[in-house]
Amino acid sequence: MAQTRITPRSQDYAQWYQDVIAEAQLAEAAGVVKGCMVIRPHGFAIWEKMQADLDRRFKETGHQNACFPLLIPMSFIEKEAEHVEGFAPELAVVTHAGGKELEESYAIRPTSETIVGHFFSKWIDSWRDLPLLINQWANVMRWELRTRLFLRTGEFFWQEGHTAHATHEEALEEVARMLDVYRDFSHEVMALPVIRGIKTANERFAGALETRCIESYMQDGKALQSGTSHDLGQNFGKAFNVTFQNAEGEREFVWQTSWGMSTRQIGALIMGHSDDGGLVLPPRLAPIHVVIVPIYRSEDEKGAVLETTAKVAGELRDDGLTVEVDDREGIKPGAKYYEWERKGVPLRLELGPRDLEQRSVMAKRRLADTDERGRPVKETLPLADIGVSVGRIMDELQAALFERALALREENTVEVDSWGDFTDLFEGGASRFVYAHWDGTTETELAIKQATKATIRCIPYPGEGPAPEPGACIKTGAPSAQKVLFAKNY
Amino acid sequence: MAQTRITPRSQDYAQWYQDVIAEAQLAEAAGVVKGCMVIRPHGFAIWEKMQADLDRRFKETGHQNACFPLLIPMSFIEKEAEHVEGFAPELAVVTHAGGKELEESYAIRPTSETIVGHFFSKWIDSWRDLPLLINQWANVMRWELRTRLFLRTGEFFWQEGHTAHATHEEALEEVARMLDVYRDFSHEVMALPVIRGIKTANERFAGALETRCIESYMQDGKALQSGTSHDLGQNFGKAFNVTFQNAEGEREFVWQTSWGMSTRQIGALIMGHSDDGGLVLPPRLAPIHVVIVPIYRSEDEKGAVLETTAKVAGELRDDGLTVEVDDREGIKPGAKYYEWERKGVPLRLELGPRDLEQRSVMAKRRLADTDERGRPVKETLPLADIGVSVGRIMDELQAALFERALALREENTVEVDSWGDFTDLFEGGASRFVYAHWDGTTETELAIKQATKATIRCIPYPGEGPAPEPGACIKTGAPSAQKVLFAKNY
Repeated sequence: MAQTRITPRSQDYAQWYQDVIAEAQLAEAAGVVKGCMVIRPHGFAIWEKMQADLDRRFKETGHQNACFPLLIPMSFIEKEAEHVEGFAPELAVVTHAGGKELEESYAIRPTSETIVGHFFSKWIDSWRDLPLLINQWANVMRWELRTRLFLRTGEFFWQEGHTAHATHEEALEEVARMLDVYRDFSHEVMALPVIRGIKTANERFAGALETRCIESYMQDGKALQSGTSHDLGQNFGKAFNVTFQNAEGEREFVWQTSWGMSTRQIGALIMGHSDDGGLVLPPRLAPIHVVIVPIYRSEDEKGAVLETTAKVAGELRDDGLTVEVDDREGIKPGAKYYEWERKGVPLRLELGPRDLEQRSVMAKRRLADTDERGRPVKETLPLADIGVSVGRIMDELQAALFERALALREENTVEVDSWGDFTDLFEGGASRFVYAHWDGTTETELAIKQATKATIRCIPYPGEGPAPEPGACIKTGAPSAQKVLFAKNY
Repeated sequence: MAQTRITPRSQDYAQWYQDVIAEAQLAEAAGVVKGCMVIRPHGFAIWEKMQADLDRRFKETGHQNACFPLLIPMSFIEKEAEHVEGFAPELAVVTHAGGKELEESYAIRPTSETIVGHFFSKWIDSWRDLPLLINQWANVMRWELRTRLFLRTGEFFWQEGHTAHATHEEALEEVARMLDVYRDFSHEVMALPVIRGIKTANERFAGALETRCIESYMQDGKALQSGTSHDLGQNFGKAFNVTFQNAEGEREFVWQTSWGMSTRQIGALIMGHSDDGGLVLPPRLAPIHVVIVPIYRSEDEKGAVLETTAKVAGELRDDGLTVEVDDREGIKPGAKYYEWERKGVPLRLELGPRDLEQRSVMAKRRLADTDERGRPVKETLPLADIGVSVGRIMDELQAALFERALALREENTVEVDSWGDFTDLFEGGASRFVYAHWDGTTETELAIKQATKATIRCIPYPGEGPAPEPGACIKTGAPSAQKVLFAKNY
């Protein structure tokens, strides 16, 4: 396969993003199916790792997986007024099936609150049936005009949690709990720091009382919404008649939540960590942890080198690492290095005759320190305890990625109090994480967006942004209870 | 939740099947979405276990997962002549999206050979790119008139393997290899014996040169096709121009295979193993391996019993078993037993004050031996090495289920040589596994089907059926090379 150059970020950030995806063979636009994508094996393997980790966290917090129909009767989507307004324009609609026109059309699910509400009404009868804690891994479809691999595609993959509770208080605890699950996943696995917060009414999920979110910082200063958790109140309960008999024998509507995280996170991973050399992956999401490139000239050398290579690979695999031995003939080591770096493999080991003599191996981290001349530093690791060294390096790389992403976000986070400073920060294509006062109205929010393209990403949790203290709205001067987070966003 | 009675198999087999599913809360008909189903948590947990085991086997044989679009342009399905004929009548069609009528309609994938062919043509260029070994876990849709939970539903879940090879020989090896993966999975995990064989032209996958299958025996004498592996030849390669440059520099069409196993297997599991008491599960697919029911009267007893219960549960969980402690208040032990038996939990442990004194626990297998009065036998297991005993019982249950299913199939497998005997065997609703000679023509096959409702399930692999020897067709008397497997089927 012909290698092409990755466009540097400084030159064209959007093109860089596409190049990273193409060169790492993560995904490609379907082309023949408008706005949809094919996730190729290397990209899908990352998603499988995300799924496995999230799924474990969901099960540990008491949730069970189930599967609801792909198709939703159009009449269902129309039952919740705000919901239909939010989703109707993006629906893909099945009008014919089995060779006939259908009496009622179906939408391919854009999300499943309505059909889940319908089944919850059949499954829930008494307070003993609550809480009901369900998750679904599914494909959903939202017909988008402007699509971008992973970030916004017609079909995408996600999980959607759907829960029902006896009280609003319990539902709110669930909303907060699952947002924290997303935060922990982002920090511990994605190595991306996030800001937890509450969405404004304008940015809320269609049909929710309140939407909580985590927001990640991308390298170009924009924000990426990385997971949302919704307090649905009794809105869907009332639309689908989901009631339970309480301990006093009275019927009440349930309180519901929903929460989701999607293949968008692969986009976050790319824009959070990758560089001009291609994909950079935190070890906990890397489909391949270590690539070993054996180096030899003669047949004699080959035998000895491959033998030790196999031994090292076996030892690392026994430690639970995924190891690729690149012993392809007819490809130079340099070309191999280049290829695996672009695919984001966290660590490369080079093993040749000289290394054998010294009972060691040369190691090059994907995210390497550089020497005084700007060249990446290689390390010599003794073969004797190679498993320990590599395990340590994986931990270090995981931590270093998080620290680097956090430092970048902190460097590019500012508090401003004047409208002039605010607009300067968002001049042209620029974006940062900007904390500023806002008067709490949708009108002002939209006016700011129109003037600067910056949106309110969230009203941060106490402790996540600046200490909450009252002030005057940056745009109108009207009173504000606390600064909120502004940024341009994906 | 109100308990209802499970209809005995002898009274109404079809109703028994539905009752088992309802009582074990495996799934239910969507109702509002014609022919589709909701898979409830207990059913989905079984599917997750199937997926995990199959996925491991696919990866061990060198396959990688990927994900292709849900929607397929109608023109793609029309590109392979036999394929469109086979699938067009069952398609669900998206004609509108994003508020507009589409220029070209899309089908929701009934299977993905066409769209995979399209992408293979982009990804494959040289012999170095081969073999390409891909698997996809996906939902597919086939609009069926008569549906039945798990066995035949509008939307269902499956995996579809898609591979491309440089030679027909390599493709045939893959077809055989993956059929053997399915056979091993059925035997080792599902505990269901299968017959491997080749489908007749009439039963072949639309667009394949040859379809291989495994056929399972259900308790009512019918067969259930449990997995298929197709030699696609160059049919899709030619339709989608999937070519490669061979080592001699010439362009050739690739040779493709596809193979699939679906949520139908949950139906096979039910009809292969379950009884009038509800679901019976092989331990390797049981979402819950052991339920412990603590028994006590006083608060004093309660404390001691629950303490030991927790200890036993912890010990079993450390051994990798999933354990449910049913300490619900206000429900009698008998009612709990009844509920967990219907859900197919392989082993129940009862733990009361007397057991504590004797440092033991009463154990009841879901598939228990019976005493001379027909009552299920309980066993006393010492607490001291409870992990060892329970581990042994799990192994015994897994093996016993396979042996029981195999014995039942053998008892109901016959060879016949006269048309009169043949028709007698399929009289009324009856079915068995019947080996008989067939003249090899579709005409005769269809005539036999019309007369008896029995179909040719497969031309068995050597060694799977009677020793291949020539004879005369049961219907026409024309020459036949070997006996083939007849049965009514799901």
